[in-house]
Parts: sequence; C-alpha cells; structure tokens
Amino acid sequence: MEKKKRQQVFRDPLYGYIHVDYDLITNLIDTSVFQRLRRIRQLSGVHMVFHAAEHSRFSHALGVYELAYRFLQIDEIYKNLNEREQLLFLVSALLHDIGHGAYSHAFEYVFKVNHESIGAKIITDHIEIRTILDKVDSKFALDVASIILKKGSFPLIEQLISSQLDVDRLDYLERDAYFTGAAYGQIDLDRLMRVVVVRNKKLAFKASGIHAIENYLVARYHMYWQVYYHPTARAYEVILEKIYLRVKDLLKSNYKFNHDVSSLKKILENPEDMNAYLEIDDFYMNGLIAFFLKSEDKILNTLAHDFLNRKIWNIIDDTPENQEHIKEILSKRTDEELKYYTLHTSVNQGAYSETTNNLGDHIFILDNKDELITLSNYSSIVHSLITSSQKSDPKLFYRTNEK
Amino acid sequence: MEKKKRQQVFRDPLYGYIHVDYDLITNLIDTSVFQRLRRIRQLSGVHMVFHAAEHSRFSHALGVYELAYRFLQIDEIYKNLNEREQLLFLVSALLHDIGHGAYSHAFEYVFKVNHESIGAKIITDHIEIRTILDKVDSKFALDVASIILKKGSFPLIEQLISSQLDVDRLDYLERDAYFTGAAYGQIDLDRLMRVVVVRNKKLAFKASGIHAIENYLVARYHMYWQVYYHPTARAYEVILEKIYLRVKDLLKSNYKFNHDVSSLKKILENPEDMNAYLEIDDFYMNGLIAFFLKSEDKILNTLAHDFLNRKIWNIIDDTPENQEHIKEILSKRTDEELKYYTLHTSVNQGAYSETTNNLGDHIFILDNKDELITLSNYSSIVHSLITSSQKSDPKLFYRTNEK
Amino acid sequence: MEKKKRQQVFRDPLYGYIHVDYDLITNLIDTSVFQRLRRIRQLSGVHMVFHAAEHSRFSHALGVYELAYRFLQIDEIYKNLNEREQLLFLVSALLHDIGHGAYSHAFEYVFKVNHESIGAKIITDHIEIRTILDKVDSKFALDVASIILKKGSFPLIEQLISSQLDVDRLDYLERDAYFTGAAYGQIDLDRLMRVVVVRNKKLAFKASGIHAIENYLVARYHMYWQVYYHPTARAYEVILEKIYLRVKDLLKSNYKFNHDVSSLKKILENPEDMNAYLEIDDFYMNGLIAFFLKSEDKILNTLAHDFLNRKIWNIIDDTPENQEHIKEILSKRTDEELKYYTLHTSVNQGAYSETTNNLGDHIFILDNKDELITLSNYSSIVHSLITSSQKSDPKLFYRTNEK
Amino acid sequence: MEKKKRQQVFRDPLYGYIHVDYDLITNLIDTSVFQRLRRIRQLSGVHMVFHAAEHSRFSHALGVYELAYRFLQIDEIYKNLNEREQLLFLVSALLHDIGHGAYSHAFEYVFKVNHESIGAKIITDHIEIRTILDKVDSKFALDVASIILKKGSFPLIEQLISSQLDVDRLDYLERDAYFTGAAYGQIDLDRLMRVVVVRNKKLAFKASGIHAIENYLVARYHMYWQVYYHPTARAYEVILEKIYLRVKDLLKSNYKFNHDVSSLKKILENPEDMNAYLEIDDFYMNGLIAFFLKSEDKILNTLAHDFLNRKIWNIIDDTPENQEHIKEILSKRTDEELKYYTLHTSVNQGAYSETTNNLGDHIFILDNKDELITLSNYSSIVHSLITSSQKSDPKLFYRTNEK
Repeated sequence: MEKKKRQQVFRDPLYGYIHVDYDLITNLIDTSVFQRLRRIRQLSGVHMVFHAAEHSRFSHALGVYELAYRFLQIDEIYKNLNEREQLLFLVSALLHDIGHGAYSHAFEYVFKVNHESIGAKIITDHIEIRTILDKVDSKFALDVASIILKKGSFPLIEQLISSQLDVDRLDYLERDAYFTGAAYGQIDLDRLMRVVVVRNKKLAFKASGIHAIENYLVARYHMYWQVYYHPTARAYEVILEKIYLRVKDLLKSNYKFNHDVSSLKKILENPEDMNAYLEIDDFYMNGLIAFFLKSEDKILNTLAHDFLNRKIWNIIDDTPENQEHIKEILSKRTDEELKYYTLHTSVNQGAYSETTNNLGDHIFILDNKDELITLSNYSSIVHSLITSSQKSDPKLFYRTNEK
Repeated sequence: MEKKKRQQVFRDPLYGYIHVDYDLITNLIDTSVFQRLRRIRQLSGVHMVFHAAEHSRFSHALGVYELAYRFLQIDEIYKNLNEREQLLFLVSALLHDIGHGAYSHAFEYVFKVNHESIGAKIITDHIEIRTILDKVDSKFALDVASIILKKGSFPLIEQLISSQLDVDRLDYLERDAYFTGAAYGQIDLDRLMRVVVVRNKKLAFKASGIHAIENYLVARYHMYWQVYYHPTARAYEVILEKIYLRVKDLLKSNYKFNHDVSSLKKILENPEDMNAYLEIDDFYMNGLIAFFLKSEDKILNTLAHDFLNRKIWNIIDDTPENQEHIKEILSKRTDEELKYYTLHTSVNQGAYSETTNNLGDHIFILDNKDELITLSNYSSIVHSLITSSQKSDPKLFYRTNEK
Repeated sequence: MEKKKRQQVFRDPLYGYIHVDYDLITNLIDTSVFQRLRRIRQLSGVHMVFHAAEHSRFSHALGVYELAYRFLQIDEIYKNLNEREQLLFLVSALLHDIGHGAYSHAFEYVFKVNHESIGAKIITDHIEIRTILDKVDSKFALDVASIILKKGSFPLIEQLISSQLDVDRLDYLERDAYFTGAAYGQIDLDRLMRVVVVRNKKLAFKASGIHAIENYLVARYHMYWQVYYHPTARAYEVILEKIYLRVKDLLKSNYKFNHDVSSLKKILENPEDMNAYLEIDDFYMNGLIAFFLKSEDKILNTLAHDFLNRKIWNIIDDTPENQEHIKEILSKRTDEELKYYTLHTSVNQGAYSETTNNLGDHIFILDNKDELITLSNYSSIVHSLITSSQKSDPKLFYRTNEK
Repeated sequence: MEKKKRQQVFRDPLYGYIHVDYDLITNLIDTSVFQRLRRIRQLSGVHMVFHAAEHSRFSHALGVYELAYRFLQIDEIYKNLNEREQLLFLVSALLHDIGHGAYSHAFEYVFKVNHESIGAKIITDHIEIRTILDKVDSKFALDVASIILKKGSFPLIEQLISSQLDVDRLDYLERDAYFTGAAYGQIDLDRLMRVVVVRNKKLAFKASGIHAIENYLVARYHMYWQVYYHPTARAYEVILEKIYLRVKDLLKSNYKFNHDVSSLKKILENPEDMNAYLEIDDFYMNGLIAFFLKSEDKILNTLAHDFLNRKIWNIIDDTPENQEHIKEILSKRTDEELKYYTLHTSVNQGAYSETTNNLGDHIFILDNKDELITLSNYSSIVHSLITSSQKSDPKLFYRTNEK
C-alpha cells in the first residue's frame, strides 16, 4: 500500500492532530457510511446531564484510529505486525463502531439487532466500503470484519482494539472526560505506551507501568459511575427505550403513522436490513420524535414530549426499604402505564459489570523475571478493586401521573 | 427575587461549574424554547472541518450566563447595578441567542428573517418564557428584549452583553477554541475581570490590563481567519444557502414536496411566524435534507447529496489573476447552474469586518490619570491592527460539473 | 481587622491568582522569615529525578493560603468560623510550614529537631512575625502556634489545615503534580469544595462527593509511590543524610572545618536555637556542600562529590531472595564505610504509612440520612485500599567501592 | 553513532517526556558542568514577581534538546541533515546555554564576560565535555562551538538553534509561561512543526502557517513586557548588578572580605578563567550574598539586605514630565549613593529591541508560488508590529534613603 505524498491531518482537541498516511484511510473517512457517524452522538442521552458532551461517534472513531496510529510507532507493536496487519489494525480501529445507530443501546434492545454484527456486515457488504477495502486485497474486508467480531484470527490486533485496555477505551475515556468536563478520565497515555510489550502475540505491560494501569482502572470506574451511569442520563435512555417500544408495538398493530417510519418497519421485519439500518441516525430519530409530538397516539405523543422537553421521570432506588413505596407507585398504574411509563432496570449488567467482573483477567503484566502474570495477581489494589467495586444500581424509573 | 435554598450547578468543561442561584434561571433553562438550543449547533458547518466542534448554542448560552454570573462578583459591576438590573443582566445573557435557528446565517439571508428581532419576540411573546419573566415584574420581559435589541435603556448591561469585549464573545472564543482544538482562543479572563471598571455607566478597562486586551483582540482575529472563515466551512455554508434558496424557489412555484415543509412555507409567507420559526432547528433541517436525498427535484437532490456526503465544492480566490479562469468556469454553466451551483462571496462583510473596522471604538481604557481613552489611542499595537488586519477574502464557490 | 482598599494578587499557575485582602497577610509574606521559604525546595531531592520539580516551599505556602481563602468562600465553612477564627485559619495556612529547613527530613532525623515545634516557636518568638500578629491581639500568635501543634483548641481549623483531606495536602498534591509533570495528582477540587459540610465542628463531606474523595486518595497513593518515594530521589536523600551525619560526627570530634559551619554547630548544641536554625536554608547547605568538595576529610569530600555530580548510589531491594547478595555487599565494607556509605531504610514508615494506615479514619461522610460515618464504612473501594495499599519498600542504598 | 538499546526518558511537564536515544547525550547530561545548570535559575529575579518561576536552566536545556529531537522527526529537517549534522544539532541544542552563570545579565555586564564565548570554550576545553565529544570525532567539539558562536559553517543548524524562531525561543516562551502562570506564552507548536520547510539550507515556513507565526510573535511580545521586563523583576536585577559592582570595586581596592570570594577575584583578573567561572552558580552567589549580610562594608551589607529580604527599590519612569522629580531625587544623594543605590536604565536595548527591530528579518515564508519572502512582506500584521511595538521603557531605580 503506497503512502500519500503529503500526510493529511485533522485538528483534534485531544491529540493536536489526527494523522493520515494512506489514501485508503481518507477514502474510508469520506464514505457516506462513515460520515454518517457525525450524526450519532457518542454518549446518547448523557448530554442531558453533562451539557457539553455533544460529541459524535465520528470524533471518537477518528480518535481510536489515531491511537492505533500512535501504537504503531511503538517498536514492540510495529515489529509484531507485518505491513498488511498494520493496515488491518488502522482500518479496524477506524471502523470498529461503524455499525452503531441512533441511541444504540435502547434500539438494539428493542429491535433485537446487534451493532457489531451489522458493523461487520457493513464492512463486507456495503459497496462503498467494500470497494475501497478490496483495493488492498480481496480478503481484507473479511479480515477486518473478523477482527471486529473477535474471531481470533488476529489475536494481537483484537486485543489492541478490544480488550480490557485498548485503543477504543483509551480514547473514549479521555474524550468523554474532555467533553463532559468530568475530572476523572485523565490517563497517563504516554506512560502506558512506553510500557507496552508483546509476548507470543499477547499484549502486556511492563511492571514499571503498574501505576498508570491502576490509575486507568480507577478512572474508568469513576467515569462509569459518575458519567455513563448517571441516573438522569439513564432516565433519558429509559424514555427513549419506551419510544422505540411504542413504535414497535404500533408497527406490529399496523397503526397508521402520520409520518414515514418505513426504515424502522423494515428493520422490524428484517433485523439484518443494512440499508434501512443505516438511515436510522440521530437526525432521523430526533426528526421522528419531533413529529411524534403531533401524533394522535397519546402514548407516543407523551413520550416524545417528555423526551424533547426534558421531563425526566422520577427515579427511586430499588432497595429493600423502598419496596413498600415502589409497590404503591406501581399499584396506581394501569397495565399500559406500567408497560410504557415505568422501567425496572439495573446497571450491574451491561458493559460495566462485564468489564469489572473480569477486571484484570485480560491485562497482563510482564514482571521483572520477564514472565506474564495477570494484573490482579500483581497489583493488590486491583485485586481488591475487583471485589470491592462490584456495585449494582437497581432503580425504578417512572413517569408521574400528572401531565 | 428570592435565592434558591441550594445553589444548582451544571458541570462545564470550561468553567468547572455553571452556577444558578435563582429559580427564575432554572425555569428559563427548562423551557422547551431554551432546550431547543441543544438542537442547534453553535458553529453550523465548522464541524465539517474541525470535527470536534459539535457543541450547541445551549452550551454557549449557559457559558455566557456563567460569565455574567462571574462579572457580577466584580465589585465594580455589582455596585453599578441594582438587584433588578443584576437579574436583567443574568437573564439577558442566558437568552441573548434564543432567537437563533438552524444554520442561521444562510437561513436569515434567504428567508429575510433576523434572529435578534425574533429573539426579542420570543422573550416577550412566547408563553413559557413570558410567564416566567412576568413573575419578576410585568415590565421585565420588555426590558430584556430591549437589551437584546440594544435600545439604549440599560447601557451598561448592553455593553456587557454585546460590545467589543463582552460576555458573549469571551465565551464563544474560548468555547470554540476548546471544541475545535484551535490553539488561538486563549484569553486571560482572570486578568480582564480584575481590570474592569465602570465610569458613568461606561464599561472600561484599566491600563494595567492592556496586554490581556491586546491578546484578546489577536486571539479573536486568529479565530476568525483560522476557524470561522475557514474556506471549507464556508463552502459547506454555501451549499446550505443553496438548499434554502432552492426550497424557497420551489415553495414559490408551488412544487409538491415529498415531505412536510410547512414550517418553511409559513415563514416564507410571514417571516414573523414565531411558532413556525421555532420548529426549524438542526434536527428539522437535517431531517429534511435527508429526505431531499429522495426528492425528484434534481437540484434539491444534488444539493442534499453534496451536503450529507461532504462533497465540498471547489473554491477559487476571486483575485485579479484568476479572472480569466473564473470567467471560463462560469461560461460553462447554465443559468440554473449559476444560480444554484455557484456563489461569489466574500467575508470582508459580516461579523468580522464589522468588528474590525470598529476595533477599539468601543473598548475604553482607564489611564493612569483616571481618564477614559479609546483603546486605539492607548495601544499602538491595536492602532496598527485596525488598519493592518483589514482583510477581505472574496471567493468563488462552485460545483464541478461531473456528478 | 480592616480589609485592604485594593485586593492584592499574586499570579499562580495553579490557581490563576492568589488573593490577599488583609495587610496582615501581606506583612507576613514580606517578613524575612517567610521570604526565606523561597530558598527551600518543596521536594528536596525529587528534582534530581523529575527535573522540573524545582519549586519552593514559598509557592506551596501561598497555595495553601489561597485554598484556605477559597474554603472561606464556602458557606458551610464561613458560617462556622467567626471573623477572628477566619483570620486564624488564613494565617495558620500561610505559616503552617514556616519551620521547615533545608532538606528537612534528613536534617530533622540527624539533628533531632522538629520542624513543627520550631515553626510554632518562630510564630510566637520571632520578632518580625510576633509584632505583626500582636496587632490582631496578644493571644493571636499563641493560637496560631496551637493550631500548628494541633493542640485541639480550634478543632475545625486544625482539620482544615492538617487532617486526611486538608488544604495542605490538596495544594501539594496538585502543585507537585504540576511541577513534576506526573499525571496522577489531578484532584476534583471544585467538587470537593461543593460537598464540604461542618457538623459539630467536624469537617465532613457529603456522600455525593464520594467519587471525588476516592479519586483524591488514589491520586495521593500514586503520587507517593510514583514521585515522593521514587528510589532515585530516596537515594539522593540518603547521601544528604550521610552528609549531615558526617558533619555532626566531625563537629562532635571538634574537627577543624575549612569553612564556617557555626550554625550547624549551634543547633547541635541546642536544637531549639531558632536563629541558627533559620540560617540553614538550601542556599546555605548547598553552599556548604560545594565547599565540602574541597574538604580534606575524605568522607565529606566523597559525599559532597556524589551529591553535586549526581553519582546516585546503588539500590537493592531488601527482599528475602536478596539477602545473600546484601550480605556479600555489606561484608566487603569497613565499619566506616558501612556507617557513611550504606543505609538500610524503608518507606513503610514516615509520612505515607502514617497516612495510609489511617486512611479513612478521619474523613467523615455525611450520608443521605444526615449522619456522619467514616469513609471506610461508606466506600468499599476505600475500605479495600486501606488494606491492599499497605506496602512497604525496604531497600539497601550503598555506594560502590570504586570512586 | 550507535543508538541505545533502550531509549531513556525524562518526565517533563511540557512535553510529557524528553527522549534520549544516544549515550552521547546521556553522558553529556551527566557531566558536572551540565548538572551545574540545575543551580542556575532560568529567569534570575523574575521569581520575585512570579513566585512559581523557579525553574532552572537545566530544565530549559533539556527542553531545547527535546524540541531539536522533535524537529528531527520532521522530514524536511531530517533529510537536509546527514547523521553527523543531526548529532551536531542535538548536542548544540543541549549545550547552547552551557556558558550561563549566576544572574548572567548583571554578571556579564559588570565583569565583562560573555556567556556564549565561555560556553564555546567549555565545549572545546572542558575535559569532561571534550572527552565525550571526541568520541564522535576530533572535530566535533569545534563544530558545536562554531554553531553556538554562529560562525556560519552550519547555517541550517544555526538557524534552528538561534534565529527569530528557533528551538531555544520556542522552549523558553512555553516553559516560562508554564512556570510563571502567564497566560500569553501559548504557541501552536504542532502547527509550526508541520509548516517548516528548508530551501537552500534556509529555514522557512509555509504560508499556511502564518497564523501560528503571528501568534508566536505576539506571544513573545507579551511575554517580554508582561514577564521578562516586569519592573519589579528589573528592580531586583538592579540590586544584583550593584552587588556585583560593589564586590568588583572592593576587590580592586584589595578589601579584606570576611568570606572566600576567590572565584570572583580570578575572573576579574582573567575573564577567560573557565574554572573560576564554573564555580559561580546561584548557590555560590546566594551563599555569598547571605554572608554579605554580615559584611562590615556598609554598602555591601545594605545591598545584600535589600536583595534577600525583598526590599525592592523605588522605580520612576524616566519621562519628560518626571525630570523635575528625578533631578530632585538624584540631588539628594552622595556620589557613592548615586553609584551604588541608583540606576538609570532602559529596556529598549537588549534582547527585546534587538529582536523586535529585526522582527521578520529572518523569518522566511514560502508562498504559494514556492518562493521565499520575508515575513513582514507577507503578513501585514507583522509589518505593523515591527513599527508599532517598538517601545522603550527607561526608568530610574533608586533606593530610598531611610533604612
């Protein structure tokens, strides 16, 4: 793959510049399917709490790409990947979130789609992307897809893209901290990059970087509870989930919408419908929700109103002492209200608990005897974090009855 | 006006926290008309060049409010405003951009509306806002509107909100620098706030702060030419202007849209139609443009395609030596193409030249003899900036003929 | 106490400005005894590892003062201290380290002095300081001294100045991080200040600030192991301790120095000799050490040479598996060499272990039922940190035999 | 020159890390003559005004070296220097200030020495340095010296080290801003490094970087007047100059000092005495001044007292309207007082006016036609800065008569 005559750069507030050496990358960025990421916010509803967190998945994707670019400057990484693998790494980093849609979490849950498999499909099947990747070689697109699906053919790249300490997380923790203004996402990236080693295609970190790793895990922990799982942001997501649910139920009952909802309909019929899926960005959904304000369906109308005008629902901790109160709240509601205006949910599941339960499982430390040991066996702090930081936060979200 | 029992805060990456002491302010923020600012990007098309500049007018409005809040901690300001005037200052700061719509510049130009007069109208006529402001007193809304229209009744507040060095500019220069990642918006806010004085209701700055002021003017100059007037961002605005223009022409000729464009229609019929205007946020326009991709009108379809897929038009400097080339480009185009696919425009007009021409006119320096003199008479650097920095940048933007 | 007509400020890279409202504070800063703090580095030998950490105790003292100033803007603090107590707080913050000397740690250890009691003595007995403080009232100096010695008369102020989370630590962690360039000292000061409460003269923090507190403790932990206890910095301190030791032994044996060491001699004779003590700043000691380069005493000469030319000694972990090797090293040395060229030492003692052992003992959390509970009972992370982070680091430092 | 097996790094608050690839560099850093730079403050008396500006020439020298290291990553630079020249560049950057002594400005003025020629001498004659450099080749030391003296043999390296926009200035402006806390030193280093080009061994910058250059010049201008030429800092330097002057006069008259001043004596006798010169660092001078407090010479004693206890002299602008007052002040003083307790001086001479007068002379812009033009011909702002920013600031500094 030939390099550009003149390196292209994009100004970025975190890294100064994003550096692009290959036309391949420029071409991918210029596809409509990648530009579409500009229209999907990175943090869904979080900006309703942290007003400045309005950045898109586009910025994040460029950031992850840039970190991959920088990791390739590290000798240990560079020498363990041949040129084709280096390109695979860069492209996978850039496209790792290409399958995300509007408010993905709620959407995936209600419409039973999966952004990673759709992402893989886009990479292999979308004409714009495929044409570009085929220029490398005919197996390239498949290999990128296999990395994103973590099939195991490129273990080192897969770890670099998605493990317990990878370019994806490194970028989003720092980026989300930058845009929210949270004080906790600071990561000692310089240090981490200096202590990276590769042993038998396994990513590991030298023991001398232990403080940087501990610090990263604590930063991550705090970002989750302080930002990603902020109750108000979750409440906002709940309303969204209910909107999706109501639309789905109305579609199923052949309700006549006052507005074109054909893309959602197609996905309901076929969750693999890539083209329909690609239409559903934030602009689409927000445009739809704006129209729902005029819907004759009372429920859809109400949910849209709550969503757009920030009528955050009430929240109550689902603790033993609150059971009486919760029972009372629920008892006053009709079945329909229970379905569309209340949600019992907890965040011990999902991204965070998955990562915390396994905190340290996958991060390897190269100790002074040049042996790999798991992080939790090396760091007593991490060891204790694994158990002590396990926290679930079950809550009931419910709409007040008065409008 | 009673203060809240417990101060409310919003986390902000620039200021740490935005502080709210009055329910009045909270209530205004919670109105649908203010929340709507979340759906309007602060920098229109600039994020197509500086990808991280995706922040909204909502963030900026909170930022301007916070600066007003901080200016009120300055003794010189505090003691020159009675309690009602202090509230007027805070509210005007918060609402100064309430009249902005989607991609305002292009929109205002094509549809002949003015965001400041609509803003004033929203303040006095919008039921949500008016109800809240009437709780202060029945003249309050009118006074806020008069400040935004710079009627002259509250000279000090008007200068603080909108002059050559005001809370609006201070916030947007720093905020836009933060989100673009540009290195030039750094302002010594601490210093500026220490040297503010008020003499005869005139805002001025002590001579000891001259370096902070010079620095601010140079930062402003660089932000304009580096960010706001970046050719690619302008090219993007050009396409938008053409979309508005095409829609307007189609509306005039009673074209049957495949989509609901009634709000734009109403505004075309009555530029003062506040409710129609309030519907036109970025979500609305972007939703519309997405639908235009399927429009049967070839021109609208083409423009929408260029806009959404970042097919930036060509740009050529409108300089004497390029006249031949420009003539050739134009000669190859039909009248319709000339109208919708080319634009001659310059940025010596507009916000910047307006401010540069008068650079220093309105900034007063309190010299060591306690006399007010204009900035340009005090600072030889500023004096020379006034003439030397006058720069216009006429360009021709044009679509290539091949699709 | 009357306020200044015009607030005085000092530019500070951490806080923007240090604010001074009282002549009392200005006068204290201008005393020779306070100016002397400019001549004592905050981090002794740490700058031999982190080259930019060359800041003085003067900067830190101003920083602690400024934090006290800011804490007094917090309603909860302000209303729990009368005007005299507020002044006591400001003055104690400013003067809390006034008793520090050159390379205090080693010095105090060898010469058996204590910087806190000398500090208290300076406050009550030094004519410059005493004269200024007496202008408040005749008991003021005694009260400041009693706060620094934590006598218990002003419990709230004592906690604010010196506890597990106080203005002293908050400043030094952030300041030392800023100057070393370490990535770990980031503290969410804004948040901490928002959640401070006072209950029965007890400082506490609202539960909603728990993340800021956890983060602070982890930052502190990392600063200790990453910066303060960096082996090379410790090695440098070891050489210093040996220099002090050799000087002391030579003084005892009435050795004829080629240089005036009378101040050290006086202190050896009377550890309470304040005037002698005040002469011993970094300039004095470094000047002395420079002269020791020409000393005829071989040991002093050698130590001075190592110190000035950064001939860091060897370091070996004092672990079971190294015992054989250590024994061998020691066996090759004469008694004199053992005394002056080797040191067995650990950092489980000293500042850190003292604080970690009690981590959480003194930080109180105000829970949702408005009850005070100790931090470790509230935060499972902290609870686990208390045990897991207990780490000692015994090492043998030794000079190689070849010169 | 072989590279190290493992890159060495130093943590730096500005650049994250300083990177060292060659043992050559490590060895130079470890020499006593380079370590000595730790004992010389970068900004002499400036820390008396900006208390945190206590950083040493050691930090700055490492910073300049690191910038050279980074400039060598730029293709345009890299390919215009062969390997030996690259080493010359790195070494010259590291050693460019090796000849600086304590409070150089005043010292050089009084003792008629020149830090650049002494620096060159140290490089060629100091045994430690010479031995290391000879390992490259026998001409290497001479070539480094010739670069520092700007003899013209290595024009590109000389421009990179010392011109109007060089690694020396880039580091000190950013570093001094960081440590003072001044808001003006921000430079867009990333941008500058992207637009560097070399044409016929001439360093130039692409026109697209014009804003970064303008910004740099304005930052420099403000740093001079805000920091380096701060009247109080100048007053402090004045006292120092008088101390040097008094010592010199006493030496000449064979005064019996109560303290060893032999190094100063040697320099007075032979300004080329390198070994004597190397002893005179800040520790030496400050130690001396501390002793002067006990001097029986009234003048020396007084000056030392003023210096150590921050008794800043009075300052009066030497303007036409102040002539009367100045005359009165001077008339009341004896000849001796005039000589030692007053100084007429201006800062239109010296570093700044030298640079401003020629502002733009040496910065070349590569315009769109690939031709080099001088900056002032390209940028109208710079053109106007050249004339408008010429400012001199003559002042009379004088000691009040009362002690």
